[in-house]
Order: sequence, then structure tokens, then C-alpha cells
Amino acid sequence: GTGLNRPVAGIHAAAIEHINKTTCKVISIDMPAGLFANKSSIGNPIVKATNTLSFGCYKLAFLLAENEQFTGKVEVLNIGLSKAFAEKETTPFTITEKKEVQLLIKPRSNHAHKGNFGNALVAGGGSGKMGAMVLSASACLRSGVGLLTVAIPPSGDNILQTAVPEAMTITATLTPELLQQFTVIGAGPGWGISPNTQKQLQFIIENFHKPMVIDADALNCLALNKDWLPKLTANSILTPHPKEFERLFGSSNNDVERLELAMQKANELNTVIVLKGHYTAVVLPDGNVHFNSTGNPGMATGGSGDVLTGIITGLLAQGYSSKEAAMLGVYLHGLAGDIAATTHSQQGMRAGDIINSLGSAWLEIINNKKSAK
Amino acid sequence: GTGLNRPVAGIHAAAIEHINKTTCKVISIDMPAGLFANKSSIGNPIVKATNTLSFGCYKLAFLLAENEQFTGKVEVLNIGLSKAFAEKETTPFTITEKKEVQLLIKPRSNHAHKGNFGNALVAGGGSGKMGAMVLSASACLRSGVGLLTVAIPPSGDNILQTAVPEAMTITATLTPELLQQFTVIGAGPGWGISPNTQKQLQFIIENFHKPMVIDADALNCLALNKDWLPKLTANSILTPHPKEFERLFGSSNNDVERLELAMQKANELNTVIVLKGHYTAVVLPDGNVHFNSTGNPGMATGGSGDVLTGIITGLLAQGYSSKEAAMLGVYLHGLAGDIAATTHSQQGMRAGDIINSLGSAWLEIINNKKSAK
Amino acid sequence: GTGLNRPVAGIHAAAIEHINKTTCKVISIDMPAGLFANKSSIGNPIVKATNTLSFGCYKLAFLLAENEQFTGKVEVLNIGLSKAFAEKETTPFTITEKKEVQLLIKPRSNHAHKGNFGNALVAGGGSGKMGAMVLSASACLRSGVGLLTVAIPPSGDNILQTAVPEAMTITATLTPELLQQFTVIGAGPGWGISPNTQKQLQFIIENFHKPMVIDADALNCLALNKDWLPKLTANSILTPHPKEFERLFGSSNNDVERLELAMQKANELNTVIVLKGHYTAVVLPDGNVHFNSTGNPGMATGGSGDVLTGIITGLLAQGYSSKEAAMLGVYLHGLAGDIAATTHSQQGMRAGDIINSLGSAWLEIINNKKSAK
Amino acid sequence: GTGLNRPVAGIHAAAIEHINKTTCKVISIDMPAGLFANKSSIGNPIVKATNTLSFGCYKLAFLLAENEQFTGKVEVLNIGLSKAFAEKETTPFTITEKKEVQLLIKPRSNHAHKGNFGNALVAGGGSGKMGAMVLSASACLRSGVGLLTVAIPPSGDNILQTAVPEAMTITATLTPELLQQFTVIGAGPGWGISPNTQKQLQFIIENFHKPMVIDADALNCLALNKDWLPKLTANSILTPHPKEFERLFGSSNNDVERLELAMQKANELNTVIVLKGHYTAVVLPDGNVHFNSTGNPGMATGGSGDVLTGIITGLLAQGYSSKEAAMLGVYLHGLAGDIAATTHSQQGMRAGDIINSLGSAWLEIINNKKSAK
Repeated sequence: GTGLNRPVAGIHAAAIEHINKTTCKVISIDMPAGLFANKSSIGNPIVKATNTLSFGCYKLAFLLAENEQFTGKVEVLNIGLSKAFAEKETTPFTITEKKEVQLLIKPRSNHAHKGNFGNALVAGGGSGKMGAMVLSASACLRSGVGLLTVAIPPSGDNILQTAVPEAMTITATLTPELLQQFTVIGAGPGWGISPNTQKQLQFIIENFHKPMVIDADALNCLALNKDWLPKLTANSILTPHPKEFERLFGSSNNDVERLELAMQKANELNTVIVLKGHYTAVVLPDGNVHFNSTGNPGMATGGSGDVLTGIITGLLAQGYSSKEAAMLGVYLHGLAGDIAATTHSQQGMRAGDIINSLGSAWLEIINNKKSAK
Repeated sequence: GTGLNRPVAGIHAAAIEHINKTTCKVISIDMPAGLFANKSSIGNPIVKATNTLSFGCYKLAFLLAENEQFTGKVEVLNIGLSKAFAEKETTPFTITEKKEVQLLIKPRSNHAHKGNFGNALVAGGGSGKMGAMVLSASACLRSGVGLLTVAIPPSGDNILQTAVPEAMTITATLTPELLQQFTVIGAGPGWGISPNTQKQLQFIIENFHKPMVIDADALNCLALNKDWLPKLTANSILTPHPKEFERLFGSSNNDVERLELAMQKANELNTVIVLKGHYTAVVLPDGNVHFNSTGNPGMATGGSGDVLTGIITGLLAQGYSSKEAAMLGVYLHGLAGDIAATTHSQQGMRAGDIINSLGSAWLEIINNKKSAK
Repeated sequence: GTGLNRPVAGIHAAAIEHINKTTCKVISIDMPAGLFANKSSIGNPIVKATNTLSFGCYKLAFLLAENEQFTGKVEVLNIGLSKAFAEKETTPFTITEKKEVQLLIKPRSNHAHKGNFGNALVAGGGSGKMGAMVLSASACLRSGVGLLTVAIPPSGDNILQTAVPEAMTITATLTPELLQQFTVIGAGPGWGISPNTQKQLQFIIENFHKPMVIDADALNCLALNKDWLPKLTANSILTPHPKEFERLFGSSNNDVERLELAMQKANELNTVIVLKGHYTAVVLPDGNVHFNSTGNPGMATGGSGDVLTGIITGLLAQGYSSKEAAMLGVYLHGLAGDIAATTHSQQGMRAGDIINSLGSAWLEIINNKKSAK
Repeated sequence: GTGLNRPVAGIHAAAIEHINKTTCKVISIDMPAGLFANKSSIGNPIVKATNTLSFGCYKLAFLLAENEQFTGKVEVLNIGLSKAFAEKETTPFTITEKKEVQLLIKPRSNHAHKGNFGNALVAGGGSGKMGAMVLSASACLRSGVGLLTVAIPPSGDNILQTAVPEAMTITATLTPELLQQFTVIGAGPGWGISPNTQKQLQFIIENFHKPMVIDADALNCLALNKDWLPKLTANSILTPHPKEFERLFGSSNNDVERLELAMQKANELNTVIVLKGHYTAVVLPDGNVHFNSTGNPGMATGGSGDVLTGIITGLLAQGYSSKEAAMLGVYLHGLAGDIAATTHSQQGMRAGDIINSLGSAWLEIINNKKSAK
């Protein structure tokens, strides 16, 4: 394997084609031949390995969905490469491991009261999609928020109050006075993209002057009203999956381009963009990107994103910075999913299981227990 | 014991009559005298054993409900019969054990997203029977589906959204455009057989061109409109219990005849027929029949069938073939029931317990743990 | 201690008075002085012991609430009394222990389907009391019933379908044709005593010709219409607590009189009367009384009786006789309560915990595990 | 460290200022210099320690939120101070430990029925805040109450009956006759402060002549109608958090003043005031104050107070005195929170987790198990 910077051609390309026709196990050393470490290789001849044994550290290529077909299962081996050299190298890309996340956790003062942990509002819910708010609210409550209110259409009132008794509900029109009470607003789960929803989102963006979390249909509403993007309060957090990202910022030719576009937009808009995927990328306005290391494909299930919105909103409410809330939030979310999978399996888990495992995830980070994975 | 092909008569019949009057424990060797191995023996003189110790492999007779009165508890002993001989014998009948099911499981790609696991619709629910949809939807979510929507009458909207937050609901009339979004449709739980329900089923059959799962009242609606049967998309899955089967395809004189009728209909209609019972038979269009080996009589409780519908629908959504989804689905369902019985007992278990044990059932198959039974 | 048959008087009475003024621990041997073994002693001078160490077997007096003030904690010691003698004595009173209950359990046939376990109806629920039906229905499902329908007012429809998805609901007026579908009817939980409820109960009594379970407000309705009592189908089961019993059959001067009245009424009406208390008495039409040995004062909490109704109804549905259903039902109910108390404490348990422990109670009986107590 | 009674000044104050600028770990011995043991020190120069190692017993100062910034983590060391001397000292302030609470527990009579454990009413609930009643009712049920009814607006009826089946609901206007049925009334969770709610509270205060529990919005209604305070039945229990206390009795300059004001008001009004905080103070009419020793900052979350209201109401219903109910209630509440935190973490726990841990908390007290902390 090599990590070159130009496409493989000629006899090497023919060899790759030949290798890719085999039914044998293909093990690539360091990187599959033809795969670039730090830029997209899509369209080039690349070995499709079943396993990749790489050296020293993760390469960017390993973190992108488009390359899983080439790398197969990746293992990074410590071969004694100079650590000092690696640390001199500057890169915007780092992987968030448990030890980084542990440094983020804020200890709780003994005499703290619920006012110390913020007053969060989550806005969303619509016809047939109130469950998204049930999930988001429940996750927010398991993230340490002090007080939680959900803003929902009247038809969701009984649903939310039955399923999430710890949350209060508002079904009336939001006013600027109401908004001022809240420490943070998360918006989007199950909200739909009706003109009325768009109007509500606009109202919140224009009247709430603290960082928000914008997810799901709130992102889709933004995509329909791109002129609102510059109005977002600095350090707001956008949490798109690839399709929502595309609606918002246009399409990309490959995962590397999309990542670069996210980096550009995070900087331009002064927001944190959480680009969701297996290695969710927390893209910061300062140009740095933190790839998350927890989670599993069992979490690719309806409602999983709503849970993340609730978590990040709950963390912001407690006074975590947007960078901290995004990094800690995606790590907790993935770790809770990993814990849920040990009991319910990847296939058998549902989004609610992630919520129920959040307590164990907090304890695993705080008490430095062995990872669930 | 013998496995002859003609009814026992004369002195042998008299001996059987005598044996059946005893209060002693009756142990049959290989098969109870008078019981045919591969055809129905109903009406003939047959020994009623308390235990049957059989040799080499299960006989078809042991898998049919009508013969439990004769065989009592069956145990199949390995007496060193030639395996090569057994494998040369061709039979359409096989028993699905864990090792077969393990080969069916599709590993999940690390970078998979919810779109990779399908977008399922389950249609059903009616006055007083919304719970059937709660169970079916919850089971579908624990089967690995990516996204789930339920189509229900408006009166069920709050119930479903409160009890199953991960599922979205549709209460409006289905349109061809709506149907095209879905990877698979499961229909029937709690649906009733009103003219309106029949109309909806017809609409779905005529406008959805991928395999469906048809259960419960959807089967009963089909029974009222047998001319729709040929319109079923190839490889759709019907999941009747014996009474539903009878309504659909007419009555049979015995279990063997019913099985043969199912084999004929599966072939004619090019559908998979899951004939439910203790050894649920997955009857394939190609003439093969796979008897399931998991499950227990604690699962003979309201809602258990709705759970199965949800599971098979969820598996189809993920890209399992109809054969795979039916075989894996009935196996998972039964295994989850066996696991539930270890905690809740056969008498004490309810259908919801089967759902809650699905995660453990997946893990038991994937990790090759010892069976719950 | 003595077990005489006339009140203590004179110097002995004075001695008892003196003893009862002490603050010392008072230990009675065999029985507290002045307490009759088999008839009421209320009003007489009786020693108030803190502990009673009795010999050979329980006396009737120990099973009645009115004597707890005299006996304190009772322990029965084996002092080698002639077992043969005890067995010659005829008494209508026996205590139901686990070994008796184990003999009642019906094994389940492997090929059983839900039709084999009956089709039960539970009727009840009213304004502000739908929860009683939630509890009763859930308990019925954990008792092995095949199919369960609840008949409730329309205002309870969403509540029941959300909380108990395995049960179907009927909110329409019951008809004779509807009633014929059911194997058993349990009536009363949360029903109220409005004229309309009384009319419904009358309709059921007159049109349903199999044994019923009559509890709570159904008993109170009966008390308002005592002329319906003789119309009860033979072997119906009444499950009054002492106050409901009094409304139905009049007051008694003491617990012994009440028990004797129950014995007379059970015989006259040819019904089973389950007289609820710490040692719940299953009073049979044949004159025998079976005192239950499970349960604890943590079960003295709202909804506990509704749970029992559901259990007994579920057992009748499966084909247990009225005697068996009553004896097994009260035993299971008490044992589940004992199991619940080990996790939730007597103070901390709620009626729903009893339901959730029913599976463990079944397993403890079937597998002959050590008792929870 | 010293425990003087006048502010530190001059060179000592300068030293304190210097110490407080350091980034080193600061350990105070006995008490941080400048901190008064028994009166407020706010505004004075005081050492801000990271740890305080104190001697013999807790000082009042350690129990007040305002001093956490000075003491840091407090540990009290046994240095062999004369116990006899300590016991001669009279102080109104004591800390409630498990051994005190164990003495309060009332054993349950075997033959007890639900009537023995009281008939409680909890009144509350309002638009968007029915969940507070769900939590309060559920907690009441896990505190040993015999029967529970909730008085709520009609819009909360389905929510309460679905989520808390063991409780009955009343949505009609309360009448004096209705009130007489109840052993105790708890009022406030989610009630709002509308004129109608105020009217209801007034009606209850004027027509219910047994001790009540007054919390949350009932306190806020009282604050709007201070002339009702003297009408409170003797030994009623008020459970304000600091802000509610301030609305009711005016502001204080510091925690010591607030405590003294609570002592004065408890005596004047002949009520128990439960001043909520990390060391919740149970302030008795007789001038004594019992500080609670259980609980953790994970309980600083919406709904936690509603849970406490339910617990204390449930204890009063069972016949605990107001002093006992308040002391035992706050201890149970905190202990349940400590147990919940071991599973769900402080950040991940929600108020419902406290309720679910109440059973374990009861068992830990009754069985004298090791504390969760």
C-alpha cells in the first residue's frame, strides 16, 4: 500500500484491476494501493482490500464513508513511528477519544440547583411526527439539563405530557418575552417544513440571541431560506446528515469535498457544523475538525438524530461551549449507542435504547470504565 | 414403533386400543405404532405414547399439531444412521436450526446510514385494535428497519405516537406517490375487514409493486376477495394461522393436506406462505418447506402474530429476500419468545415481552450463544 | 396459653389485665390465654402477646385479622405431635401451600394455539377510574389468557389501547351475540355504580351462562340489587374485601362470624367467595375453606384487587375450574407481591409491580424455587 | 482555620486576599480563615479553600450553599473531642443520618388493609404541566399510601390515567364532602397561579382541617395571598426552594438570615418548613432544624420537587407525624436520588429515576444496607 498523491495508472492500474477480481482475502499494508490519504480518490483505480493494516495513526481517508469499499476493516498498528514528528505535523483533523472527552466534563457543585443547569427549549413536532420530540426531549433530560420545555403544535400536547412527564409543553405562539427565558433552543425534530414552521424558525432566529441547535426539518427550512443563514447567532450548531447538508450547502463530488465545504461554511457562518456519519465530524469555525470515535451502524435508525439534538441542546443549557457540547454530545450519543448494542444488538436496537443508555455512557466517561466497544 | 404406509388393522389394532386404555407411561420407539411418517394418520388406530424416542432425524409427522396426541414428547436419538444416505434422500422438508439462520444474517457496514436499512410502512389498526399496530411497529423497530411509518385511522394517531415514538404516522388516504417511497409494506394487524379496509388493501396491492407482508385482517380481506390473490406481487409473504389459511384457501381434512395445499398455493401464487403453528412452516414457491425450531406455547397469546408481521416487514426492508426474511423472522420470533419465557414463564408472558427479547435473540444468533430453550 | 372454649374470668382475667399493662415482651405458648382456637374471642379478656409460639399446626384464630392484636408474631413449632391424629381430624379449613398449588398447574401442550387458552372479557372502567382496568387487563395477560378484550366506556379507549396494546377494546353496548364469544367474563374494576353500570351488570348476568368473576364495583352493584344474586351462574367467583362483603351479605360481629356467613352464602349461591385479607380465604360451595399463605401488607394499596380480578379471570379462561382458579389466583397474586417487595419494599411497591412479578411467581411455582418470603 | 465571630481585617485580610489569588490547592484546617461557624460571613474576607478538614462535627456554615465557594470539599475528622461536651451543648441544628431515620419507620401490621395507609389527594396540574402531577402521583404511590386520587383539570385526565393507572382522578370541582374523605392533601405540582387555581387553594385551605403539603405553585399562590397563611392547618408542611421561600416570606441577605427567617415563620405559623437545597433543612415549629444528609446535584432537575411532594404526602397519609413525614421524606428522596445516580449518573438522571429508586431506598433504610453514596 502507498499514500501517493496521483492516480495509479498503467501496469499498476491493471494489477489493481486484477486484484479486485480475486475472491481471496486482500490485505493492504498502510493503505490500499491507489487510495489517497488526504484527498478523494473516487474514480481512480484502487485496491479493494478486505483488511487494511495501517501504521502510526488514522488517515483522513479511513474516516470517510466513500472509502470503506477500499479499506475494508481498518486496524492501525503502532510500529514505533516518532511521536515527536507526528506532533510537529499540523493537521486540522483529530479523532476524539475518551481521554479528550473526559477533560471536557464539568464537575457539579454540591449546592447546585436546577437553575444552574439551564432552561432549554426544544421546538419541533408536527402531524405524525411527535415521536421525534418525545425522543429529543427524553434525551435532553438525560444530558443534565436543569429545566426543559418543548414547543409543539397543540395536537402533540397529550403525547408529550404522557411520554415525557419531566418536560413542560408550550403550544401557544412563541413571543420574544418567552424566548428570553431560555438558555438555549434546539429546533427541528419532526417539525415539517410548512410555511408556518418556516415562519416560526425565522422568528426564533431573529429573536433569540444565544447559540441554537438546528437539526432535521429546521435545517430543511433553512435550506429553503438560505438568506437566514447569516442571521444565525454565532456558535450555533448545525447537525446535518449528508442529505440535509447537501440541501443546505449544495452537492459535493465526494466526501473530501463535502468535508472541505463544511469547513468553509463553518468558518464563514461562524457556526459549528456536526456532519453526521459513522465518524461524525465536528467542524469548528476555527478550521479544526474533530472526528468522533464512538457509535455503530445499529444507530442508523429513525430517531437517532433526534436523540443527538436533545443531547447537544442539554449540554449547551448547562454552560458547555458550542465546541464542547458538540464534541461531548456526539461522543456520548455514540457511546450510548455502543452500550445499547451490547444488550439489544445493532439490528434489535431502537432510538429509545440510546436514550436509556445515556446514564451508563456518562458513568463510563466519568469513571473511566472500559469502553463498550 | 413402525413407519408403515397402511392403517394398522386386526389384532394389531386391538393391541393399540388396549395400550391406549392403560394408565401406564407409554414409550414408542422410532414412531408410535400406526402413525405414518409422511402422511396423515388421522382416523386410524394409533398408539398414544407419552414419549417417542425416534432415530436419526425428525419425521414430518412429528411436526404436525394433529399428531401430538400420539407422539407425546418426542426425542430424536443419534444411533449412527448413515449420514450419507440421509443426504442422498431428497425431501422438500427441512428444519431450520440456528446454524442455518446464522448464514442468513447480513453484516452491517460501518458507514451504513438509515437509508441502507429501508423505509417500511405497516398498515393496520382499527376501532379497539390499535394495540396490534403498537406491537407490530415496535417489533419492526427491533428488527433492524431504517425508517418506519405506520398507516392508521386518525383515531389511532395519539396511541401510536405515544407508545412508539420512533415510528411516524400517516392517517391520510394513501396515494400512489406515497407508496413509492416505501421499500416494503406490511399490512393487516388490527385492521378489521370493513369495506373501507378492503378498498385500502386493494389499492395497495394494485399500486405497490414490491413484495408485501400480508397478515391477520389483510388475509381475511383477501379471503373475501380471492380474485386479488393473483395480483399479489411475486415473493410477497402471507402469514396465516390455520383458521386464516382455511378462510383463504379452503378447509383440509388434516394437517398433511393443509401443508400440501399450502405448498400448491405458494407455487401457484409465487408467494411465501408462513403457516403458523408450533413448528411454523415457511412454504416457498420453489416447493421447499422450512419448519421452524424455536418458540413455545407461551406465545399462543394475543398480539404474538402482530409481532411476527413487524419482524418480517423489518427484515424485508433491510434487503433480506422473502425466503430469508420469512425464515429468519420466524426463527427470531420464536427465539425471542423462548428467551421471554425464561424470565416471564410461558403463562406469564405477553406479546410485548417477545418484542423486548428480540435484541437478545439477535445477539444469541450472531454471537452463537447457547439456545434459550 | 390455652385453647379453651369459655371466656376466662375471675383471677385469671385479672392476671390477663395485669399482663396486658406490662411493657415487657409477652410470649404466649401455644395460644394467648383467653383466645379461642376456633371461635371468636372478641370482647373476652385475652393476653396481648408480642409473640406466640404454637404447636403442631395453625389454628383458625391465627388466620383472622381480629386476633393479630393478641397473637403478635405467630410461629408454629413441630413438637412431634401425632401426624396420624391430625389427619383423622376433619376440618373445613386448610392452608394452601406451594405444594398444593403445584398440583393445580396445567402443563401446556406444545402445539397449543391461543384459542386453547380462552377468550376473556373484562368489563369495567369509569370516569377517573380507567387505571383499574389497565391493571386488571395487564394482570390477565400475565396469567396465561389466550385473547383478551376489555369492555369500557368510550372515554377510556385511548387509555387502554395505549397502556395495554395486547388487549382489544369494546366501547359499544354489549349484545348477547358478543357475549357468546367469550370463555369467561370478569367484571367490576373501576366500574362505578351508576344506573347504567347496574344495567350492564344485569345484562351480563342474565345473558352470559358461564362462570364469571365479580369484583369491586360489580359487587357493589350486586349489593344494590340483591335479587340478582340467585341468578349468578354456578361456580362464579366473588372477590369481596371485608367492606364489600358486608354491603353484600350484611355485617358480622367478628371475623369468625363473617367467615361462617361466607361459608353459608358460598353454599347457598353455589359460588366461590374469595374473602380478601392477609390470609385470603377461598370459600367453596362444598363447605371447604382454603386460606392463602402468600402476600404481605405492601399489597394493601390501590389497584391490588384489580390485579387479582385479572389473574383469576385469566385462569378461568384457560380452563382451570373455579376452585382451581381462585386458589391458584390468590396464591400467584400473593407470591408476586412477595417477589415485588424484595425489589421495591412493602412501602415502595405499587400495584403495577405485582403484575410485573407474575412471571417470576409462575416460574417459582413451576420450577419449585425457594419462596420469596 | 478559625471559627471567630468578627470579620478578619488588616494584615490577616491581606493574607486571605493573597491566598485567594493563588492557583495552588488550598487546604483549610477546621474552617477557612474568616468564615464564621454559625452566622453568615458573606461580604467578609474569607479564604477560598479547595478542601476543608474540620474537627468533631459539622458546623452550620458547611451546610449553607453560600459557603461552598469558601470551604470547597468538606471532610469532618474525628480527633477525639469530648463527646460528652458536644452532647451538653444545646443547638437547634442536627443532621439527619440513617440511624435517626430508621427509628422513624413504622412496621406494617400483617393484617393491614389499604384503609390503614390512608387516602391521599394530590391537587395540581395545568396547561403544559400535567407531567408534574404524573411524577408527584407516582412518587406518592411508592411511598406507601393506601389509596391515591389526583385532582386535575379535565385536559389532564387521559394523561394521568394512562401514566399512573394506580391513581384515580377527579376533574370536577372539589366540594367539602369530597375533601372529608381524604386523610391528607398535597397541593401544587404544575398547578399554575391562575385566579381559578388560587380560588381552589383557598377552598382547600378553608375546608380541609388536617395537615396539608404545600409545594410549588401552591406556594406561589400563597405568596400572592399572604393573608391565607395564618389559616393553614397546624402542622401543615411547606416545601419551598429558596426562590419560592423569598416570594412567600421576603428576601434575605444571606443563607443564615433565610434560615433564621424560616425558623421564625415555622414557629409563628405552626408549620413545618422544608427549605430545599443540598442540605435540605426541615425547620420545625418547635425551633429545631434537621438538615438532611442524602441527595446529590443530579437531582437539580425539573420534576425533582414534585417527587418530594408526592413522597411527603404519601407518608402523612400513612399516619406519620408532620415532623416524621418531612424528615423521612427528604431522606428517602435524597437516598433514592443517590441510588439513581449510581445507574444513571448525576447528569443522566431524570426525576422519574428518583421515583423508580424509592423501593431500593426504603429497603436500604429498613435492611440497614450500606449507603448508596
